[in-house]
Amino acid sequence: MAGETTLTVIGNLTDDPELRFTPSGAAVANFTVASTPRTFNKQTNAWDDGETLFLRCSIWRQAAENVAESLTRGTRVIVSGRLKARSYETREGEKRTVMELEVDEIGPSLTWATAKVTRASRSGGGAGGGFGGGGQQAAPANDPWATPAQSAPAAAANDPWATPGASNDEPPF
Amino acid sequence: MAGETTLTVIGNLTDDPELRFTPSGAAVANFTVASTPRTFNKQTNAWDDGETLFLRCSIWRQAAENVAESLTRGTRVIVSGRLKARSYETREGEKRTVMELEVDEIGPSLTWATAKVTRASRSGGGAGGGFGGGGQQAAPANDPWATPAQSAPAAAANDPWATPGASNDEPPF
Amino acid sequence: MAGETTLTVIGNLTDDPELRFTPSGAAVANFTVASTPRTFNKQTNAWDDGETLFLRCSIWRQAAENVAESLTRGTRVIVSGRLKARSYETREGEKRTVMELEVDEIGPSLTWATAKVTRASRSGGGAGGGFGGGGQQAAPANDPWATPAQSAPAAAANDPWATPGASNDEPPF
Amino acid sequence: MAGETTLTVIGNLTDDPELRFTPSGAAVANFTVASTPRTFNKQTNAWDDGETLFLRCSIWRQAAENVAESLTRGTRVIVSGRLKARSYETREGEKRTVMELEVDEIGPSLTWATAKVTRASRSGGGAGGGFGGGGQQAAPANDPWATPAQSAPAAAANDPWATPGASNDEPPF
Repeated sequence: MAGETTLTVIGNLTDDPELRFTPSGAAVANFTVASTPRTFNKQTNAWDDGETLFLRCSIWRQAAENVAESLTRGTRVIVSGRLKARSYETREGEKRTVMELEVDEIGPSLTWATAKVTRASRSGGGAGGGFGGGGQQAAPANDPWATPAQSAPAAAANDPWATPGASNDEPPF
Repeated sequence: MAGETTLTVIGNLTDDPELRFTPSGAAVANFTVASTPRTFNKQTNAWDDGETLFLRCSIWRQAAENVAESLTRGTRVIVSGRLKARSYETREGEKRTVMELEVDEIGPSLTWATAKVTRASRSGGGAGGGFGGGGQQAAPANDPWATPAQSAPAAAANDPWATPGASNDEPPF
Repeated sequence: MAGETTLTVIGNLTDDPELRFTPSGAAVANFTVASTPRTFNKQTNAWDDGETLFLRCSIWRQAAENVAESLTRGTRVIVSGRLKARSYETREGEKRTVMELEVDEIGPSLTWATAKVTRASRSGGGAGGGFGGGGQQAAPANDPWATPAQSAPAAAANDPWATPGASNDEPPF
Repeated sequence: MAGETTLTVIGNLTDDPELRFTPSGAAVANFTVASTPRTFNKQTNAWDDGETLFLRCSIWRQAAENVAESLTRGTRVIVSGRLKARSYETREGEKRTVMELEVDEIGPSLTWATAKVTRASRSGGGAGGGFGGGGQQAAPANDPWATPAQSAPAAAANDPWATPGASNDEPPF
């Protein structure tokens, strides 16, 4: 996919991530990031909060499972992904569009926290401290994005909201 | 500072972060991120690596200590910051300029790893699962960027390379 | 303002920009950018369009007037700004939130067009081909962001939707 | 190409763009963008310039010709692209690496200028004010990125520095 709108957002999870599985077995995690900008107020000599931006996020496969295992309500995260429009119809038949973030990479912020990092078991095999070419992206065999499983029917594999009969009249966040 | 050039990079640490302290006691961590893009090769049906981008990074204060405690050689990270030019002179008196990233936020990537996150002790005090306005940025009292310490002489407090007599003829990475 | 969520979007104007003036005389232009990602389809050997992202944008002061004078429906643009949440209430009293882009910089894309650039008169005064420090940002006296006019009441000066009695039950774009 | 490091930079051209053609006839334009951040100085009540970042840029095909025709020394631009490392050897046999921006989109900034936009002739044919799906990216037939010409030998077509015998001991900017 070319020409996508990418962004990076820093904020806190509003709740624990929800982990689900598509009929074909692909994991997907959903969560909302709350990001609040601040302005320095010279009168009070303190920071004033601006309006909070809530961004609904989804992430797939191994990363979804890692997110569900690592992050909880309130965790400060750094997230980068692609902004997507998603259209849906309310119970009253009204069409609405919301924007969501299809996450490419996410990590817990180290600004006010430490993290003990463990390579996920599926990446397996003694890769150790490799970096650069080979190390950055684990071997193809370990790359969930390159496996045959990915070529499962797009509608089912990529859209948890596509489940037949699903009602989607809930607020976007 | 307005008009800065910001970017987000995904990659792996080429080495353990180096943690140092300025004379005034501010922590700074330095490390290099190696980021390798890939192209899918239809002939071989595999991913080919592109040329690796090495980006030298620095991060300050509490976050620097958290980075040194949490990340090691090879860890895949997501980093966002501001691209800066830094000029220096070689032993031969030649002027050179390198680009470096002044890090704003960093976290270990959850794409192929899990992380156990612990709020750093200095942020203290039962903040729990808060989010949004109050929760996102810990109380002003816990914010190293807002403390009086920050108004220490800029040259000394913000630039570890400003140390008098320091030689800086080493390669940029 | 610190901690804002910035992004860059490439797309086409869905209509001519609308230019308005606040009671205090500040110009504001509003427009929507339509951005459509593409995927290469190996079966058909052609590009397939993805779902179009529509992003409502606003821009202020001199730049707003320049936008209104330079861009029209269909112009391909490159836009960078800060993603903002804006809450409003429908006529039925329902609360809704939309995301909009507060534009920092915009220009017509040169991918498939040429542009004849003319320095706006207000920036005046023989600046010529300057660049770097002095040239990049015109002299402080020419900077609309730094003038006293900016310190007009925030609600009035910065929010065209704050006009008393304004109905805001229209769709976000 | 996946996993590239993208960024958007705002600044001024340090010189007129240089337009060249590869042996296979592909146009490439090179130029440098100077971007200077600013800090507001409360003592002097004025903006202080930070250190200027100089970023060497290259852009290809139709867009290269449009850039050469539209932009001159001093023009303020908004540029988005992918940060790349380029290695070269000095006359003394020393290996050096510089970072450059492979430009995806560029436009003249409308912050302090107006622009008269004209669709480039090659994009031809009455497309008018279209937008969205079809309009955003001109028809495949008009897309220089999709033409057979693109599949010319990569080394020759994409790298003006690959010309045999070329000396490249010049400073990066």
